[in-house]
Amino acid sequence: MADGRPIGVFDSGVGGLTVLREILRRTPGESTIYLGDNLRAPYGTRPDEEVRAFSIEALDELAARDVKAIVVACNTSTAVALGDFRRRYDLPILGVVRPGAVTAALTTRNRRVGVIATPATVRSHAYFNAIKDENPAVEVYEHATPAFVPLVEAGRLTGPEVEREVADSLAPLLGERDAAGDFVFPLPASARIDTLLLGCTHYPLLRAVIASVAGDGVAIVDSATATASALVELLAINGLEAPLGADATAGTTADGRGAEPPTHVQLTTGDVDTFRAVAERIFGEAFSDVASVEVAAVPS
Amino acid sequence: MADGRPIGVFDSGVGGLTVLREILRRTPGESTIYLGDNLRAPYGTRPDEEVRAFSIEALDELAARDVKAIVVACNTSTAVALGDFRRRYDLPILGVVRPGAVTAALTTRNRRVGVIATPATVRSHAYFNAIKDENPAVEVYEHATPAFVPLVEAGRLTGPEVEREVADSLAPLLGERDAAGDFVFPLPASARIDTLLLGCTHYPLLRAVIASVAGDGVAIVDSATATASALVELLAINGLEAPLGADATAGTTADGRGAEPPTHVQLTTGDVDTFRAVAERIFGEAFSDVASVEVAAVPS
Repeated sequence: MADGRPIGVFDSGVGGLTVLREILRRTPGESTIYLGDNLRAPYGTRPDEEVRAFSIEALDELAARDVKAIVVACNTSTAVALGDFRRRYDLPILGVVRPGAVTAALTTRNRRVGVIATPATVRSHAYFNAIKDENPAVEVYEHATPAFVPLVEAGRLTGPEVEREVADSLAPLLGERDAAGDFVFPLPASARIDTLLLGCTHYPLLRAVIASVAGDGVAIVDSATATASALVELLAINGLEAPLGADATAGTTADGRGAEPPTHVQLTTGDVDTFRAVAERIFGEAFSDVASVEVAAVPS
Repeated sequence: MADGRPIGVFDSGVGGLTVLREILRRTPGESTIYLGDNLRAPYGTRPDEEVRAFSIEALDELAARDVKAIVVACNTSTAVALGDFRRRYDLPILGVVRPGAVTAALTTRNRRVGVIATPATVRSHAYFNAIKDENPAVEVYEHATPAFVPLVEAGRLTGPEVEREVADSLAPLLGERDAAGDFVFPLPASARIDTLLLGCTHYPLLRAVIASVAGDGVAIVDSATATASALVELLAINGLEAPLGADATAGTTADGRGAEPPTHVQLTTGDVDTFRAVAERIFGEAFSDVASVEVAAVPS
């Protein structure tokens, strides 16, 4: 079995491009359609009902484009409404929460995992539940860091000021700060996390700063990598992989029939030029196929 | 590491004894405390809030008895409130939904799984979500069979009348019935399930009848077996197993120190003699250590 239809990837904005990047690395023969709901991003501070409704409107657009599977590359959407999406569409739908949670549960040695995410994701306890499903003996400390997405969207990814803001956000999870602003370590060993899960697809872009603030004793796990691996497995076990030979460099399959080279399209509900500029600034890659797609504006 | 404390097992009634039986088979060195909330069983037709409150009252009793882990052997409680329990108690808590769901996702060949359970469990979509988490390409058909728990509690497990009632309950999942009352097969292959998950711990006691009604083309998966296996893994990976040698036949550990032989206690919120009689009728085993525990009566 083989299936040459594209994979749909959905995010509230540009953060899901971290997932797309990992997907392209692992599946060079697959076509993709990325949809960012930039007009209404960020989702992480919105009420659940709005997250659900906006996500469904965007996913309807992807489903209408004959995708063979959808990756919900938005942690907030996944946390709030993955089950609803799966009941609505007759398509395999993969979220970002579980792959990251499984990796974190396997990474921790002292069975203490910190999770940073948007307020909506933390409110849902989706990571708490998914990590406990993997190993109920792991202690999970969830902490909302609403300052991070605006940093990333503004392209502020490095520097002492960013480091200070990241440190402030992580303080409740990592320890107390003294008068000089440094973290006071050690916390009692019984309270220290050894694994920090980045529960938002924007956060990998702040990974260097987060890792530096957290220190050597804390392993950083991000869900983008884990989700791309889970997608590879999903395609393989369900016979959904693109035909052999369908990659960017080969136009002919092993059996001599032609296989279409993969195509990649990015759609945004926002301004096309802005999307392209932000994506290129963040990823250092040119996105030539960005197109516009219309959704309802945010009710005011 | 080793931990000689008992494992707590909770169910709304006697159905969870199917899980306890599988646990005892796999972990002869472990002590257990079983608690059945028989006074307020069955849970499956109660509103979610009542299921949550009754479960927590019962779990408080187990937690107060210094258990090292708790198995929520009630599908309804697991489906409605497992996350709440895990946030309330600083103890590893294992539910019955995920182990059964994982087994079903691995069992199906045509990626069509039927799930039968109580109305509350079906309403929660817990099995749907857990099976999709394991493989999002599996189609899941959930179906409430509220008639089954009363059959089991009444000890009606075989016979043509029971078979007729079971067949009536399963008809929407398995196919149409003709004028003579026989199932009209085949359904179109695209609509046929090849795996039926018993999403209630009472249902394994009707397994023979259910299997006969479902026919050879349908594999029956029950969560009792899967959950006991998941418990063995939980104890092993977290260093929570009872000390070596602590089983019914040996009183001395490998290092020469004495290890307590395991103990087994059953508690019920209902009438002790009734619990003992129902449990023995169903399981064909004597339960000598049944004791009473008090909870609030059902508000009337």
